[in-house]
Amino acid sequence: MSFDRLIERIAALENPTVAGLDPKLSYIPQELREEAYRAHGRTLEGAAAALFAFNRGLIDALCDIVPAVKPQCAYYEMYGWPGVKALHDTIAYAREKGMFVITDGKRNDIGATMEAYAAAHLGETEVEGARVTPFGADALTVNGYLGSDGIRPLLKICREKDGGIFVLVKTSNPSSGELQNLALEGGPAVYRQMGEMCEEWGRELPGRYGYSGVGAVVGATYPKELAELRQALPHTFFLVPGYGAQGGGAADVAPGFDGNGLGAIVNSSRGILCAWQKEGCPGAEYAAAARREALRMRDALRAAIGPVKLETEGSHETV
Amino acid sequence: MSFDRLIERIAALENPTVAGLDPKLSYIPQELREEAYRAHGRTLEGAAAALFAFNRGLIDALCDIVPAVKPQCAYYEMYGWPGVKALHDTIAYAREKGMFVITDGKRNDIGATMEAYAAAHLGETEVEGARVTPFGADALTVNGYLGSDGIRPLLKICREKDGGIFVLVKTSNPSSGELQNLALEGGPAVYRQMGEMCEEWGRELPGRYGYSGVGAVVGATYPKELAELRQALPHTFFLVPGYGAQGGGAADVAPGFDGNGLGAIVNSSRGILCAWQKEGCPGAEYAAAARREALRMRDALRAAIGPVKLETEGSHETV
Repeated sequence: MSFDRLIERIAALENPTVAGLDPKLSYIPQELREEAYRAHGRTLEGAAAALFAFNRGLIDALCDIVPAVKPQCAYYEMYGWPGVKALHDTIAYAREKGMFVITDGKRNDIGATMEAYAAAHLGETEVEGARVTPFGADALTVNGYLGSDGIRPLLKICREKDGGIFVLVKTSNPSSGELQNLALEGGPAVYRQMGEMCEEWGRELPGRYGYSGVGAVVGATYPKELAELRQALPHTFFLVPGYGAQGGGAADVAPGFDGNGLGAIVNSSRGILCAWQKEGCPGAEYAAAARREALRMRDALRAAIGPVKLETEGSHETV
Repeated sequence: MSFDRLIERIAALENPTVAGLDPKLSYIPQELREEAYRAHGRTLEGAAAALFAFNRGLIDALCDIVPAVKPQCAYYEMYGWPGVKALHDTIAYAREKGMFVITDGKRNDIGATMEAYAAAHLGETEVEGARVTPFGADALTVNGYLGSDGIRPLLKICREKDGGIFVLVKTSNPSSGELQNLALEGGPAVYRQMGEMCEEWGRELPGRYGYSGVGAVVGATYPKELAELRQALPHTFFLVPGYGAQGGGAADVAPGFDGNGLGAIVNSSRGILCAWQKEGCPGAEYAAAARREALRMRDALRAAIGPVKLETEGSHETV
C-alpha cells in the first residue's frame, strides 16, 4: 500500500534509477527488427514483436542493477492493440525478473471510470466471477487536475495490491509553468497546491520508511522547485524525469533526495535505450551498452547523493 | 483541422448529442455475452468480443440519429489488450457508419511522447516506411496540465487529419473545484485560465463556423461556469459530460450553446447504454431501447436549445 517495496529494492541495489522503456522502432537494432518482421510482417504486429524483444533484452541486462522500469504507454499505443499487447508482455516480464514496474500513463478520470483505469493498470478485472489481471503494474502515473474524485479509486486498489501512484506536480517540460507556476490567490503556485494534495491523499497509504503510496512527478529540469517540494512534502516520494536527454544531471536531481539518500527515483529513457547508438557500438551490443550507461548513471547519482540509509520508525538500519 | 465535420453532422441530424460508449459487462445482455464466451471463453478475449458486439448493435441503432460516439478508453483497457482491440474495432465500425468518433482518453504528455499519443489516436504510425492507422479517431480528449508542450504535437496532426481535441477545462465531477476553481492571483480561476489557453491554441485551427479544432470539456453539472465559459470562449466548442446519470438535464446544458443552437455537444453514456435495463425490457431489445432514449434526449435538447442555424462567415444558412 505504499512505495516500501520500491524503496527496499532501491536500497538493496543502492541505485535510485528507473529505466524508461519508451521504445521507438528507430532505437531498435536492425537485426532485431528484421527478425520480428520475418515472423509477423512489416505490420503493427511485427513492430510490436520488435518492441517486446528489445525490451526483454534490456530487462535481462538491467534487472540486477536497476530497481525499476517505467514503460510509457504512448509508445505502445502508437503501434495499436499489438503495441498494447507488447506493453502487457513487457510489464509481465519485468515483474518476473523482480523489477518494480511503473506504468507511465498519466491517466485521469473520475468515479467509475477511474476505477476502470485502476483495475486496468494496477488491479484485476472480473469476467463472470473469474478475476484476471489486464496489465498488472506496481504503480501508475496520474494527472490530478480532476481532484480527489480522480484519485480515491486508485487509493483503494493501491491498498489492496500494495501499489502506488505518482501524481503530476511539476513536470520537466519547458511549458510546464504555463499553468503549474501560476500563483494562487493568497497561496502558493498551482504545482505546490497539487503537491500538498498529494501529501493529503498519501495519509491513506502510509509506508514503513516515511513515504506514502502517493508520489509526485517533479522534473529534474527545475532543481529549485524540486528542492522546495522535497522540504514541503516530507511523505511524498518523487519520480524525477528529465535526467540526461532532457538536460538534468546528477547535481540537478540531488535536491530531490532526503538526508538518507532516499525520497526519489530518477528516470532515464533515451540515455539508456539509445546508449548503443551514442557509443557507436554494433546493434547486437545494445543491451550491454544500456547496462554500461545504467552503471554510469548509478555511479553519478551515488556520488551526488551519498549512501542510502534505510530507516523505519524506531530502527536505524544502514544498507 | 477543426470541428467543422462534427458541426455539419450535428446540424444535419439536428442533434447535438454524443453517445458515450463505456460498456461494462453488466450493461450487456446475457445472451450477447454468452455468445461471445462460446467463441472465446470466459476470458479477456471473450469479454472484449462481447463489448464489440454490444457496441456494434448500438452503433447500428444510433448512426442515423446521433452524430457522434465517444468511447472511453478506461472501459476497454480494463479488459487488457483484447479490450483495446475492441476499442479499435469500435472506432473503425462507427466511422464506417458515418459517425464522428471522439476517443475519450484524457491523454497528456510532452514533446515526442505526446506526438506518439497523437499518432496513436488521431494519426498514423510508420512501420519501415509503411503508414498504418493504430486507432484513427476524429478527436481526442486531453488534459492540459502540462501546458503547450502537451498540446502542440496534437495541433499538427489535427491539421493534417482534419481532427480536433477537447481539453479538460471544468469537469463534471463533485471534486473538480479542488484545483479547477481556485482563484489565481489577480486573475480568474484555474478552469477559466485553462479555457483561455484553449482559445489561444485554437487560433492555429480555425473553422468555417467560428469554432476552432481545440474544444473544451465543461460539465453539465456546473451550469453557471458553462454559461460563463460560453461567453468567454467564443471560438471553443464544448464537449459537455454529466447529462443524465450524473444529474444534468436539458435546461442545465442549454447555457453551453450559442444563439445559433451550436457550440456544444452533450454526452450521455449510461442513459443510452443501460436504457433497456431502465425500461425493464428484454436484453434482445437493448439497441432499440438505446435508440428510444437517444430520441428522447434529442427532443429534450431541441426543446431547450431551439433550432440549429449553420452560419459560415458571410452566409446565413438555416437548417
